[in-house]
Amino acid sequence: MSTAPQVEDTTFLPPSWEAILAAHARIAPRIHRTPVLTSSSLDAIAGAKLFFKCENLQRTGSFKIRGATNAIFSLSKDEAARGIVTPSSGNHGAAVACAAAWRGVPAYIVVPKNAPKVKVQAIEAYGGKVTFSEPTITSRTEVAARVQAETGAHLVHPYDNDRIIAGQATAAKELLEEVGDLDAVFAPVSGGGLLSGTCLGARGIRTSVRIFGCEPARADDAYRSLATGTLQSLDSSDTIADGLRASLSPRTFAILRKYVDRILLVSEEEIISAARLVWERMKIIIEPSSAVAIAPLLKAGVVPSLNLSNRPDSGVPKLGVIFSGGNVDLSALPWTR
Amino acid sequence: MSTAPQVEDTTFLPPSWEAILAAHARIAPRIHRTPVLTSSSLDAIAGAKLFFKCENLQRTGSFKIRGATNAIFSLSKDEAARGIVTPSSGNHGAAVACAAAWRGVPAYIVVPKNAPKVKVQAIEAYGGKVTFSEPTITSRTEVAARVQAETGAHLVHPYDNDRIIAGQATAAKELLEEVGDLDAVFAPVSGGGLLSGTCLGARGIRTSVRIFGCEPARADDAYRSLATGTLQSLDSSDTIADGLRASLSPRTFAILRKYVDRILLVSEEEIISAARLVWERMKIIIEPSSAVAIAPLLKAGVVPSLNLSNRPDSGVPKLGVIFSGGNVDLSALPWTR
Repeated sequence: MSTAPQVEDTTFLPPSWEAILAAHARIAPRIHRTPVLTSSSLDAIAGAKLFFKCENLQRTGSFKIRGATNAIFSLSKDEAARGIVTPSSGNHGAAVACAAAWRGVPAYIVVPKNAPKVKVQAIEAYGGKVTFSEPTITSRTEVAARVQAETGAHLVHPYDNDRIIAGQATAAKELLEEVGDLDAVFAPVSGGGLLSGTCLGARGIRTSVRIFGCEPARADDAYRSLATGTLQSLDSSDTIADGLRASLSPRTFAILRKYVDRILLVSEEEIISAARLVWERMKIIIEPSSAVAIAPLLKAGVVPSLNLSNRPDSGVPKLGVIFSGGNVDLSALPWTR
Repeated sequence: MSTAPQVEDTTFLPPSWEAILAAHARIAPRIHRTPVLTSSSLDAIAGAKLFFKCENLQRTGSFKIRGATNAIFSLSKDEAARGIVTPSSGNHGAAVACAAAWRGVPAYIVVPKNAPKVKVQAIEAYGGKVTFSEPTITSRTEVAARVQAETGAHLVHPYDNDRIIAGQATAAKELLEEVGDLDAVFAPVSGGGLLSGTCLGARGIRTSVRIFGCEPARADDAYRSLATGTLQSLDSSDTIADGLRASLSPRTFAILRKYVDRILLVSEEEIISAARLVWERMKIIIEPSSAVAIAPLLKAGVVPSLNLSNRPDSGVPKLGVIFSGGNVDLSALPWTR
């Protein structure tokens, strides 16, 4: 039996359960405890009992405020004083702008120039200062580094950050606190902050719960990373799921490798039709990135193929779905473009 | 002191608190206990702390399933056997179709021919049989009587019915159970079933709560009825708030006269812009009829003018708003027509 240290496992030790509990206590007074909604018509289509954690109804319109609030309120006064800088495709930027305003410090947000106008306006409405980059990871990182050098602001990465991951974990924690016997949870994956947090938050309440990531086929780096066992990159993507154009980091990859059952891919058409179905049946506004998490479950045969039910009596699995956000340009709906 | 009976007061004695409790127990296993949502950005506009009872997230997409379920499940087996007939501008029809299907009996729905297509499709999706009438109260009543004569079905009026009113009362009851110290509740008014129920359900929990009805200026019969003290009619209306084109009945008028503080009127433009604001900020889909209940509160100076706050310390009133429904044609949004 070898005693050699397993370097890959310990380099990115995930946030502890205690860190998640501390994050929850820190952010709870400022965020919504979002409702868990159900829909009998979507249940009938999926062949499952679905429980939707509605982070689209969260403050700033997405789960991102959880991680941003935890990260920004974890900083010392000195660390926070010269402000926060972050690269963001939109929702994280709005969340950082909002949480920085609560903390009373400036927020510098680096946004790819193809981000939806409505998300840029939201960042500005919360008082964030926007700098545009090219729509590539490389350009975003470079511009963020330049802004950081100029301002002395503290960098809060959208997902490659344990405090962000611990904050995002609180959504799944709340979901499992409300529906304790879920067989599995489905969440969208982009950089992996939400999905990593979902693994940790859900499994902290119920060890046996299975976790699935859902990803646009047009931005399938997480799928390829888990399939090959090697971190794959995605320098640019034009999926309609504008919140899912980032790639995993080594930190999130390490967590997902350990805890995620499988990544499910969906087409652009499946994303759009799932979004419309949710709007119509549930009367809530989800953005395309949220629709990615429900889209696989609406395809004939998918739920049975995953062998999800631990319920020999009824056979119907109980599945959680994280609706990540609801920031959509209402003058250009996905299905009318 | 006269002992003469007061005929006007006793002719339409409202449903008792016991009837409302029984209704709630009867329908609770079948309906959603809808969430009460808040929005700090709408609070800032209104100058109040707002609590939104989201019946747009209710089964069948509106509060109507509460009354319909109570009425249909209160019938004896014999009464229900040959089915249910009702005139409806849409949401009540879908609710009756759904509740009748739960009861296992047919539903005959008489719909004005200018009702939104999406609402007619919803009625049919629940298995309801649709007959069209002219878009007048007179025609609707006539056609419903004819269908009733032909089928022997039991008539369940959309609002001129105590069991319907007792069912609708459960929405405000739940709201006050969740937020016990509201200063006032705002609900849309059409035939007055929801508003009557709101009076009874809210005041059953907190006697001092004030109740306001909200009505399109283009369908202002309730406003005129309360102003004149005489029931006013409205034979036809083209307001975009398609759920609010009916008139009070003697029964609902008697309740509203007794308990409603005031009716607030709003323009078509105010309805549309309130709807859009709620979609954008709250990420929920409300139909124009729901927007009527929030529209007055978004107008500068209205909240202070109502002298609502019993809170000398903070001065900010706590107000409940009933979002009645969320059934909208997503291919023709109110602001893109």
